[in-house]
Amino acid sequence: MSYTKIAAIYADSETLSGQTVTVGGWVRTIRDMKQFGFLELNDGSCFKNLQVVMDAGVLSNYAEIAAQNVGAALVVTGAVVLTPGAKQPLELKAASIEVEGTSTPDYPLQKKRHSPEFLRTIQHLRPRTNLFSAAFRVRSAAAFAIHQFFQDRGFVYVHTPIITASDCEGAGEMFRVTTLDPKNPPLTEDGQVDFSQDFFGKPANLTVSGQLNAENFAMAFGDVYTFGPTFRAENSNTQRHAAEFWMIEPEMAFCDLKGDMDVAEAMIKYVLRYVMNKCPDELSFFNSFVDKGLLERLEHVASSDFGRVSYTEAVEILSKNNDQFDYQVFWGCDLQTEHERYLTEQVYQKPVFVTDYPKEIKAFYMRLNDDNKTVAATDCLVPGIGEIIGGSQREERLEVLERRIQELGMKPEDYWWYCDLRRYGSCRHAGFGLGFERLVMYLTGISNIRDVLPHPRTVGNAEF
Amino acid sequence: MSYTKIAAIYADSETLSGQTVTVGGWVRTIRDMKQFGFLELNDGSCFKNLQVVMDAGVLSNYAEIAAQNVGAALVVTGAVVLTPGAKQPLELKAASIEVEGTSTPDYPLQKKRHSPEFLRTIQHLRPRTNLFSAAFRVRSAAAFAIHQFFQDRGFVYVHTPIITASDCEGAGEMFRVTTLDPKNPPLTEDGQVDFSQDFFGKPANLTVSGQLNAENFAMAFGDVYTFGPTFRAENSNTQRHAAEFWMIEPEMAFCDLKGDMDVAEAMIKYVLRYVMNKCPDELSFFNSFVDKGLLERLEHVASSDFGRVSYTEAVEILSKNNDQFDYQVFWGCDLQTEHERYLTEQVYQKPVFVTDYPKEIKAFYMRLNDDNKTVAATDCLVPGIGEIIGGSQREERLEVLERRIQELGMKPEDYWWYCDLRRYGSCRHAGFGLGFERLVMYLTGISNIRDVLPHPRTVGNAEF
Repeated sequence: MSYTKIAAIYADSETLSGQTVTVGGWVRTIRDMKQFGFLELNDGSCFKNLQVVMDAGVLSNYAEIAAQNVGAALVVTGAVVLTPGAKQPLELKAASIEVEGTSTPDYPLQKKRHSPEFLRTIQHLRPRTNLFSAAFRVRSAAAFAIHQFFQDRGFVYVHTPIITASDCEGAGEMFRVTTLDPKNPPLTEDGQVDFSQDFFGKPANLTVSGQLNAENFAMAFGDVYTFGPTFRAENSNTQRHAAEFWMIEPEMAFCDLKGDMDVAEAMIKYVLRYVMNKCPDELSFFNSFVDKGLLERLEHVASSDFGRVSYTEAVEILSKNNDQFDYQVFWGCDLQTEHERYLTEQVYQKPVFVTDYPKEIKAFYMRLNDDNKTVAATDCLVPGIGEIIGGSQREERLEVLERRIQELGMKPEDYWWYCDLRRYGSCRHAGFGLGFERLVMYLTGISNIRDVLPHPRTVGNAEF
Repeated sequence: MSYTKIAAIYADSETLSGQTVTVGGWVRTIRDMKQFGFLELNDGSCFKNLQVVMDAGVLSNYAEIAAQNVGAALVVTGAVVLTPGAKQPLELKAASIEVEGTSTPDYPLQKKRHSPEFLRTIQHLRPRTNLFSAAFRVRSAAAFAIHQFFQDRGFVYVHTPIITASDCEGAGEMFRVTTLDPKNPPLTEDGQVDFSQDFFGKPANLTVSGQLNAENFAMAFGDVYTFGPTFRAENSNTQRHAAEFWMIEPEMAFCDLKGDMDVAEAMIKYVLRYVMNKCPDELSFFNSFVDKGLLERLEHVASSDFGRVSYTEAVEILSKNNDQFDYQVFWGCDLQTEHERYLTEQVYQKPVFVTDYPKEIKAFYMRLNDDNKTVAATDCLVPGIGEIIGGSQREERLEVLERRIQELGMKPEDYWWYCDLRRYGSCRHAGFGLGFERLVMYLTGISNIRDVLPHPRTVGNAEF
């Protein structure tokens, strides 16, 4: 901890010029010219490497160091020298170098291009590459920006539960959480699995959303947000789906759909600006090597007013272009990614909120509009991705909510506490869900969700 | 969102004095004196209520408002009036009040003392009480303080996976995560459960710690931290254990045990100071109604240098007082809570790090000391709680680690990637785990973990 971080050397180069510092890091490249040599050291504190100059006349162990393999861990003490004319703004003239941990000639991360598929097989090492170093640093910055945005606005961060005993959203396939014997589970007298003997005394699952729980807290704290892992046991093998992913779900009392969109728009812009300020080297790398238009798009989105259009209007616009789609658009249909992208990329050329969807294609808790046909829902669509946020004003009227629960064949007793919120001091409220990985993909241009998750979990994959 | 938060009124009372604002919140108390009345409104933006003055001469719906029950949601528009001599520093003179949502005379949270046990049966409503309003606001502030502490120091936040396919710590009972039919699981030819047909193609569990994964990232980023849920399927029903809880696990490269303790001590002090500054009303409430010595203890801890003592020395001290313990202390024994509390409360009277425990009672990944008997582990003990942090320097020597894995009868092939970290650029590194709920209990004086978790999960309990 008494070592100087490379990030600090770049940040404070004027002050540190001529000073002696000690740096611990890993060799990215090494060049031995017999009497002297260069190595690029990376310590993970920033995207950039530090160039270290080794002089055989100075280093008694020059030969040992020059023989190190890529990936070796070194501790280097030396003087910071500014090099204004050179490729890099500064370098470290080594006075001493110690080998902390060697590497081997068959170190899997040699200086060459590796495919993302190969790198997924060495997830424990891939953070040491430029791509993943940048991706996970952006991920960390974006996560903090989310917290900062909400905390600055007085939102209370709530850790909604991961294990739940009810499939509250009816959101489809869930993972079961159990301590029962997998082969010989206890049975009841009528031959069913006796879940009363399971850990929680009933069947339990991994949560698909913290929203209903978050509403409990919004009705006390006004503005709250969750930020935690959520799970889907969908047997789908796409670039955009993982079984385990992180979600942000704000929930706001005394807030309608318009207020909901205002917060969502402000949040996205805040995170974009934060990451653009905090991670310029990373974004510049992505812009050069992953997605040429990235910086321009982020700048554009951060400074645009997002569009807002009703589902009904959107369907009118889209159905005029039905010849361009695999799936025809008609009122009542669920919008496909091709429709969403057409709307945000071709029609609006910026992010757009689509509002007031048919109730049949949306969840039970969304507020029924006066037309009795649509609900106060919104999806935020962004160029290059499609849907990034789904939100709604919630149904705050007890009788309307109960009717909806029954219409959908759900069991009202499962929702006694959710309905209680409408019994005691109910109020307008709204919220949304942001899939965090989608946001990181948007910020980096990375197109596969497996490459923005530290250790992705998908069908058939839970390694590391 | 265009409403003014009560927190903002208190914070900006000079500016807002005489101004008209609109507030949305819930009735905590209501007093009707026929021609005028008072109500206390809480909107969750801060601990304090707002006193609203109702005048029957001003409000055309005075009777309707005066008849509202505790818990009702109201929207109040009125002028902010400073009341320097009065019990509260300001009040709102209502010009209009609208009922947003009524409550009922049998609203469960009447103005009287409710037992924590009762309140656990109405977890959806308990955030509306003073106790839980304060507890969860402190929890949110402490969570943010943790992020701020690490981000300010350049640590990268890593979302280590929740679902894992290996019991890497060997840390005991885990929850199984599955999509197999619970009653008739597929079987292999030899009659065993065929986990190749399970979602991940093998048995999977909920994580007990993100540490081993965090090490992957520390070896790339230098300093990283996790902050996420962890799980224990222990059938224990105590005040200090939950099946689902949140943990913070920093991991630092080029860091030894001393550096590890330095970070842990700085982090605890930072969080204490942050919460003391951010939540004075909440802490003052806890100090008055939950734990009389709280404020004094927090101030003392935030300004003390933590003690540091080796396990061997601690055993010497403790064994002289064996007559005071249920369990006798001897070299080699695991310290019980009674011993830990004696050490921190009686001997040191402040937090203390105990270091260098016998290897037999600690985990396989902890670094073996030169004495071959102890490992570079540390527990941080705090008055009133006992252990709050457990950490260690990790074994960075491949051959020592592999020997330890075999000694303990673990399977080396399960740890191929963990051992790889020692093969390619290994370096000294260290980290620790902080149970977040323990920290919140410490900050609030609340003695039952069920009362610092939004919706606690324990044996037999996964309601809400």
